[in-house]
Amino acid sequence: MVDNERFSKQMEFIVEIDKLKHIERQSALCDGTRQENDSEHSWHIALMAVLLSEYANSIDIDLLKVVKMLLIHDLVEIDAGDTFAYDLVGNSDKKQRERVAAKRIFGILPEDQNKELLSLWEEFESRATPEARFASALDKLQPLILSYNNKGWSWKKHGVVSTQIFESKKDITKGSENLWEYAKKLIQKSIDAGFLVEK
Amino acid sequence: MVDNERFSKQMEFIVEIDKLKHIERQSALCDGTRQENDSEHSWHIALMAVLLSEYANSIDIDLLKVVKMLLIHDLVEIDAGDTFAYDLVGNSDKKQRERVAAKRIFGILPEDQNKELLSLWEEFESRATPEARFASALDKLQPLILSYNNKGWSWKKHGVVSTQIFESKKDITKGSENLWEYAKKLIQKSIDAGFLVEK
Repeated sequence: MVDNERFSKQMEFIVEIDKLKHIERQSALCDGTRQENDSEHSWHIALMAVLLSEYANSIDIDLLKVVKMLLIHDLVEIDAGDTFAYDLVGNSDKKQRERVAAKRIFGILPEDQNKELLSLWEEFESRATPEARFASALDKLQPLILSYNNKGWSWKKHGVVSTQIFESKKDITKGSENLWEYAKKLIQKSIDAGFLVEK
Repeated sequence: MVDNERFSKQMEFIVEIDKLKHIERQSALCDGTRQENDSEHSWHIALMAVLLSEYANSIDIDLLKVVKMLLIHDLVEIDAGDTFAYDLVGNSDKKQRERVAAKRIFGILPEDQNKELLSLWEEFESRATPEARFASALDKLQPLILSYNNKGWSWKKHGVVSTQIFESKKDITKGSENLWEYAKKLIQKSIDAGFLVEK
């Protein structure tokens, strides 16, 4: 027997999160035809987690937890919007805006699920665990893969240079030293190919 | 130490699946502004699995397996395209086209991961396990939720009527009797609201 109040809350949440498909990111798809949105990005990195978990620094990582985190990590942007990693003004109040958003959006759910998802989101945000650090590494690596393939579409558009990329990506190593080795190579290849200005 | 050949195959796959973001489905988003694509749909139902697993017919379902299945279930459409559930011609050779696609796409991966994902996809396609039947129930329920919210956008566009919806959705009960009860209510509400022709 279904608890109707509980079920209604779950369905309301499922309809609400459809809005994530409208939140445009700065990264373009690999073929550079258009920008990707948060739901596409979340799908991509959730599947990357499944494929690349062997490279996590921690060998006994809880993969389901990583995947859950990645599926929900951008939901706050339904209210708070996507803040470009190199936007200093936008990043100054990002945390506050996202915290308010998390309370409202996860708050649509029944209490136990609200608690679970809010806690997973906070764990991700604080990079508090091996799962959060690995999830964050994938979140940082994926747009780099896209940008290399689309020949630096968003880097050129925003005038982003190599030291900024290096700085914003270097924490990949906290989740996966192997993926950071690869990321460094991609940055160098992007410079060599003229997709990214070395500066 | 990373096995470079293995890692290259994984990265090639991760770039290849970016194409899923271009595969347009017949369903429109909840607000009816545009059609959704396969990657958005896959993200949505993977998160639905996390939230709704308590309604699976089988109580000891392997949630990670369900989520993996849902993340990969539409990848074959990169080659085979999206076939509308009510397209009789397109559905006549759908299985064959998708099988060829699965071999090529999962075949990009290292052998162990190729085997795992191909096997998960086949399990999903054959509805052989409680996980596959629950995953399939979500795959069928989600476009119904979208269509109810967008006032029958794709039903009206394609002249789909209630008996067709009922027929194509009724196997939801094999994965979740509770979700099928809800789906029947949504179909009836869609008829009552004039979003779906009763016929």
